[in-house]
Amino acid sequence: MSLPLITKPELSPNQQALPIVRDLIARREQLQVAVHRVRGATVIDCGIEVPGGWEAGLAFASICLGGLAQVKLQWADFGGLRWPGIEVVTDHPIRACLASQYAGWFIKKDKFSAMGSGPGRALVQTEELFTKLGYRDSSPVAIFCLESRKLPTEAAVDMIVEKCRCEPSDLYILVAPTASAAGSVQIAARAVETGLHKLMELGYDLGTIESGWGICPIPPVAADDLSAIGRTNDAVLYGATVHYNLRDDDDKLSSLVGQIPSMASRDYGDLFGKLFKQYGNFYDIDPLLFSPAEVWLSNIQSGSSFHAGSLRPDLLTSSFGLEYR
Amino acid sequence: MSLPLITKPELSPNQQALPIVRDLIARREQLQVAVHRVRGATVIDCGIEVPGGWEAGLAFASICLGGLAQVKLQWADFGGLRWPGIEVVTDHPIRACLASQYAGWFIKKDKFSAMGSGPGRALVQTEELFTKLGYRDSSPVAIFCLESRKLPTEAAVDMIVEKCRCEPSDLYILVAPTASAAGSVQIAARAVETGLHKLMELGYDLGTIESGWGICPIPPVAADDLSAIGRTNDAVLYGATVHYNLRDDDDKLSSLVGQIPSMASRDYGDLFGKLFKQYGNFYDIDPLLFSPAEVWLSNIQSGSSFHAGSLRPDLLTSSFGLEYR
Amino acid sequence: MSLPLITKPELSPNQQALPIVRDLIARREQLQVAVHRVRGATVIDCGIEVPGGWEAGLAFASICLGGLAQVKLQWADFGGLRWPGIEVVTDHPIRACLASQYAGWFIKKDKFSAMGSGPGRALVQTEELFTKLGYRDSSPVAIFCLESRKLPTEAAVDMIVEKCRCEPSDLYILVAPTASAAGSVQIAARAVETGLHKLMELGYDLGTIESGWGICPIPPVAADDLSAIGRTNDAVLYGATVHYNLRDDDDKLSSLVGQIPSMASRDYGDLFGKLFKQYGNFYDIDPLLFSPAEVWLSNIQSGSSFHAGSLRPDLLTSSFGLEYR
Repeated sequence: MSLPLITKPELSPNQQALPIVRDLIARREQLQVAVHRVRGATVIDCGIEVPGGWEAGLAFASICLGGLAQVKLQWADFGGLRWPGIEVVTDHPIRACLASQYAGWFIKKDKFSAMGSGPGRALVQTEELFTKLGYRDSSPVAIFCLESRKLPTEAAVDMIVEKCRCEPSDLYILVAPTASAAGSVQIAARAVETGLHKLMELGYDLGTIESGWGICPIPPVAADDLSAIGRTNDAVLYGATVHYNLRDDDDKLSSLVGQIPSMASRDYGDLFGKLFKQYGNFYDIDPLLFSPAEVWLSNIQSGSSFHAGSLRPDLLTSSFGLEYR
Repeated sequence: MSLPLITKPELSPNQQALPIVRDLIARREQLQVAVHRVRGATVIDCGIEVPGGWEAGLAFASICLGGLAQVKLQWADFGGLRWPGIEVVTDHPIRACLASQYAGWFIKKDKFSAMGSGPGRALVQTEELFTKLGYRDSSPVAIFCLESRKLPTEAAVDMIVEKCRCEPSDLYILVAPTASAAGSVQIAARAVETGLHKLMELGYDLGTIESGWGICPIPPVAADDLSAIGRTNDAVLYGATVHYNLRDDDDKLSSLVGQIPSMASRDYGDLFGKLFKQYGNFYDIDPLLFSPAEVWLSNIQSGSSFHAGSLRPDLLTSSFGLEYR
Repeated sequence: MSLPLITKPELSPNQQALPIVRDLIARREQLQVAVHRVRGATVIDCGIEVPGGWEAGLAFASICLGGLAQVKLQWADFGGLRWPGIEVVTDHPIRACLASQYAGWFIKKDKFSAMGSGPGRALVQTEELFTKLGYRDSSPVAIFCLESRKLPTEAAVDMIVEKCRCEPSDLYILVAPTASAAGSVQIAARAVETGLHKLMELGYDLGTIESGWGICPIPPVAADDLSAIGRTNDAVLYGATVHYNLRDDDDKLSSLVGQIPSMASRDYGDLFGKLFKQYGNFYDIDPLLFSPAEVWLSNIQSGSSFHAGSLRPDLLTSSFGLEYR
C-alpha cells in the first residue's frame, strides 16, 4: 500500500496540534481543565478532577486529530432525533484519523493502563498499523490523548518519554474519562476514523481516500465509564454518517459500500452494552460491527457516489437513555 | 444556593469579553457599527444610526455572554421551517447567561432608559439576582449591552461609570434596537438564558447545572420595536430548543422537566403581541411563559435525559410574518 | 442606482481578503495547495497539480467573497437529502458577491482563457456591471480567483498586471478546476451571488438589499469539468436556499418573489447538462434559470417576509450521481 502521507513528512500532526494544546493550556480556566507537571511532562486533565466540558472536548478532538481536521459542535437532525452533534472535516483522513486519532496504543505500566490515541503514536510506532501506513512522524514534540479515569503515574510518564525518545518537557498528555463531557465529544468525533478502520478491516486500500467528512450525535454523559463505552459506541454505530472522497473503480465501490456500515455486521441492531454482556468481552463482538451507521463513497474518478446504511434514532433513544414526556 | 461560579473569581466575564469588544471596534467598517466617545466612555452603535448586521449581532451576543460561550450563525430546521438560526454552547451557563447576558438592569437616567444586559452587571450588583448567585466580578473593565433605539446620554454614561466605580475609559456600552439585524440575533441568542431564568422562577437550584446548549431561529427584523419585542419573544417561546447537563435526582428531574418549556404556561399558544394587547402590559402575562419551546435535561449523575415541549413552526410562521407562495 | 457600497471606499475587498490569502499560503502544506511565482505574481494552485481539498475550497470561497462574508462547511438537510453543504452569510451582499465573487471577467490571452472572479475585478473595471454598481476599489493589492484546469501563462499574468495597474508582487491569482474539491466548494458558495444576479437580470434595484444568507449542497467532484459545470449549476438551481434582508414595498416584493427562483424559468426541471446538450451552447439556455431553488425576501421596512421556490432533492440525486443501496 502506498499512501500519499509519506510525500509530505513536514506536515507533522504533532506539530500541527501543538498550537491547539497551547491554546487549551492558556484557556484552562475557561475550558475547566487542570494542567499538571508530571516528571517534567505536561499532563492535562480534561474531566477527572475537573469539570472539563463541551469546549474542552472540542479541543481534545482537534488535538487528537493532529490539528488536521475542522471540528465543530453542531445541533443537527439524526433521522428525526434533533440532538447536539459534532462534525469533522478533513483533507488528511489517513494522517489525521489513523496515524493520530485512532486509539491503537494500549498504554500499560504497572497498575496504570489506558487506551492511547493522538499524534504521539506516530512517533512511538509500536503498532502494526504504522507498518501498513508506512508513515513515521519525526517531531520533537509528542502529544497523546488518553481515555482514562486516572491521571498517568510517574512511571507511566517515564515509559512514554522513553518510547517517544523526546524531552519530558516536549511531552503533552491529555486525559478524559469516557463518562465525561469531553469524553463524549472526543469519541463522537471518531466517526470518520471508525469508517476508515472498518475499510482497513475489509482489506481496502486506503491510499485511494482523499478526504473524509462525518457527523455524529454526542451521547449524553453516562453514569459510569462502562455505560459510557456503550453509548459512545452506539452513537457511531447507529447515529453517524460519513462521506469519503476517493479514487477507484465504480464496480468495486458499488460492491464494497454495502459492507461498510454497521448494518453489514451480524451483531447489528443490538446496543453495544447488550452485546458486551451477551459475549462477556469485547473481543467476541463482531469486529465488523464497528463502523458508522451510514456511509457515502464519492468516486472522484467517475463522479459516482455510493450509499449504504441508515440512521437508527430508535436505538439512539434507547442507548442514550432519552425519556420523552 | 452555592454556585460553582465563585470558585473561579479570576474568570471574569468582563475580561473575557474585552478582546471581542476590541475586535468589534477594529472591524467597525466591516461590521457596520459606529464607535462614539461619550464622556470618556466607548459607546458602540450596532444598529441605530448605522446598519449593523448579522455579524455585528453575533459579536454583540458573544460579548453579552461574557465571552464564555461559543456562538454560531446556522441555518437549521425548526420543526419543518428551514430558517436562519443561532446556536449557543456554554460550559459556564450561570456566569455567561445569568451573571452576564440576562437583561436584568433597568438603566434609567432622566429621559434615557434601556434594559441593560452584559457582564458589567456583575460589577454593579444592584440586582437581587446577584445575591442569589453569590457572585461579583472585580474587573476594572465594565461592558454593557443595551437594547435601545437611543444612544445613552452623557448623564446616563456618568451614572453607569459611577455605579461601576470604573474609569470612564474602561467602560464599553454596546447598543442595538430590538428591531434591527443585530437586535434579532442577540435576542435569539438568549434561549439558554431564558431556560435558566425559568428554572430559577421554578425555584430550582441552578448550582447543579454544568452546561447549556441551545438553538433558536433568528426572527426577521420587524417594522418597529414593539413588533420586534413580540417576534423575538416568540422565537424563543415557540422556536428554541435547549439542552442542559446537570447533576440531580432522576425523580426530581422527571417531574421538573414538564414545568420548564413555554408549553407549561396558561398563556401558551398565543403570540406575545396578542398577549401584550390582551393584558395591556408585560407584567400580567404569565411569567412562567418565558421559556424555550423545547427542553432536554441530561442528568450526568444517572445518565438519564428528560424531555418536554415541542416546536411550533405554525406560530413562528405567523409571528415572523412569513408569506408563502 | 445608488448603492451603499460607495459610502465606504475604505472597506476594500482586496484588502479584506489579503490576510486570508496569506493564511492560505502559510498553510499550503495542510491545505494541499501549491504556490508558484509567475512573472513576479503569486499564483496559487488549489487543485490542478495538487489535491487541494474541502478546506482549500473554503479559503478560496472566503477570498473570492473579498473577505466580507462568513463561510462555513456544514452537513445539512436539503429537502430530505442529508449532504455536505456550505453556508454563506454576508452583511455586504453587493460588494462581496457582485463586486468580488461574481465570475464576470472573461480572461483571455493567446491560448489561455478562464472565467475570472474575485475582488481584483473591482480594480480592473472592464465589466459593465461596475458602471451599474458605481463602485471601484482602489487597493494596491489585486486578488483574482480563476475557474480553470490550467495555470495562467506568463503572458496572461502580464496582461492582468497591466489591467490592474499593480505591482506584480501585489498580484495574487488562485486557480481551481471546476471538477475538483476546491472547485465544488467555491461554486456552491455562490448561491447568494446567483440570487443577486438574477435580481439584477429582473431589473431590481439592488441598493435596497442589506444582507444575504444562503446554504447550498456541495456537489460531489465530477469526472470531468463539463460534468462538473452541470453539477455545480444544478446544486444552486435545485439545492440552494437564500435569504435577503432588504427595504422595499410589500406589494412590489410580493409580486417579485415568484420571479426569482429557478422555478420561474421555462427551462426549470431539467438538469443543466441536459439543457446544455439540448441547446448546444450556454447562451440559449434561459438566463432566468440561473437562480437559487428557494428564496426568502425579508422586508425590514414592513417586517413581512416573502417566499418562493422549493428544493428538488430528486434532481440533485440524479445530477450528483448518487446511488442508493
